[in-house]
Amino acid sequence: MRQRFDKVSDRVKIVLVEPKKGGNVGSVARVMMNFGFSELALVNPPYPDDEMKMFAMHAWDIVEKANVYSSLEDAVMECGVVVATTGVVPKSEKEHVRHPIYTIDQLPSILKGVGGKVGIVFGREDNGLTSEEIGMCDIVITIPTSSDYPSMNLSHAVAITLYELSRNASSLVERTSSTFEDRKLFFERVYSLLLDVDYPPHKIDKTMLVLRRVIGRA
Amino acid sequence: MRQRFDKVSDRVKIVLVEPKKGGNVGSVARVMMNFGFSELALVNPPYPDDEMKMFAMHAWDIVEKANVYSSLEDAVMECGVVVATTGVVPKSEKEHVRHPIYTIDQLPSILKGVGGKVGIVFGREDNGLTSEEIGMCDIVITIPTSSDYPSMNLSHAVAITLYELSRNASSLVERTSSTFEDRKLFFERVYSLLLDVDYPPHKIDKTMLVLRRVIGRA
Repeated sequence: MRQRFDKVSDRVKIVLVEPKKGGNVGSVARVMMNFGFSELALVNPPYPDDEMKMFAMHAWDIVEKANVYSSLEDAVMECGVVVATTGVVPKSEKEHVRHPIYTIDQLPSILKGVGGKVGIVFGREDNGLTSEEIGMCDIVITIPTSSDYPSMNLSHAVAITLYELSRNASSLVERTSSTFEDRKLFFERVYSLLLDVDYPPHKIDKTMLVLRRVIGRA
Repeated sequence: MRQRFDKVSDRVKIVLVEPKKGGNVGSVARVMMNFGFSELALVNPPYPDDEMKMFAMHAWDIVEKANVYSSLEDAVMECGVVVATTGVVPKSEKEHVRHPIYTIDQLPSILKGVGGKVGIVFGREDNGLTSEEIGMCDIVITIPTSSDYPSMNLSHAVAITLYELSRNASSLVERTSSTFEDRKLFFERVYSLLLDVDYPPHKIDKTMLVLRRVIGRA
């Protein structure tokens, strides 16, 4: 099913993966309401507590209406584009096949070129997103900070992201594209095809990552 | 005394006027460190508490080194430009002589044209800055939000402001101009001059405000 969106605030879904502190969930809801956004998805969140309510202030309704999921995959299933956020540029032996990392101010122009619901994914307060979770996303963005102390508060990162999107709201109009689910089925089909054609097993993961990157940027 | 600044982070001083919650002071320090800023001035702050320390995380040093003042005037004395921040556009019978209100994304280009230390002033969590405090500043800025819920968390407002300045860091190089103290002496001189020349008393306040605005924009 495809949807069309008239406003950037209807098009964007903020996804928090395993936030630990209720206060941060509340703070995120508050800044979402400040910028007119309302769709919040929570993956394994903490139980609602007084801090969550206190920090949400008038935006408690956003927390109450948030959908709760047990995996990131489920949380972004209907999204046309899934954006991972990362505080520190991850380094690993597989770095050369990883997603390129864009800065937050590039996000509006990237989103301008694609369609469908946009899921923007923020990781845990301490450890961010896992490599696997980042690998599941189409685009990776970071907020440029001082290298001395790149670790931002979760709600500060959301605040700056929503500010950037709001500043460029007019360019974030809708275009139709595939959903996360469409692409999941596609990648599964390619994977089994590679197995069927006796593609060298040690090359399959790398090929899938490259393909994911190409499709994500398309 | 005039100073020259090579980096925007050395040029900017964040001034919090009567913040009530220690956690907000700590959060502001943390996001300052994230963006490489370190000069914090506090006007009648709360006593340091566990929350202040907890929210500051690795930026506790910024809180410890913050200068504490009993009035906004003292806190911005050496500033070449004083920027007030406001969440809601104030309305009053004197609105026509008030400062024009710029949006945060206009701040870098405004600062580009002026010199000296920049004091950016954030008001109380609940009531912001008083009209008198805003009147003391050269420029007034606001972060455009949804009209349904414009009241932002203090540290979110600081986060977005520092993000905007960092994004435009290269254009915020130094030029020499008058300090707040220079301008205070100048305004006092004009004021007593107006009294000396029997300027109509009911027009003095308005004239001073207009003058302040003109000088602030010059």
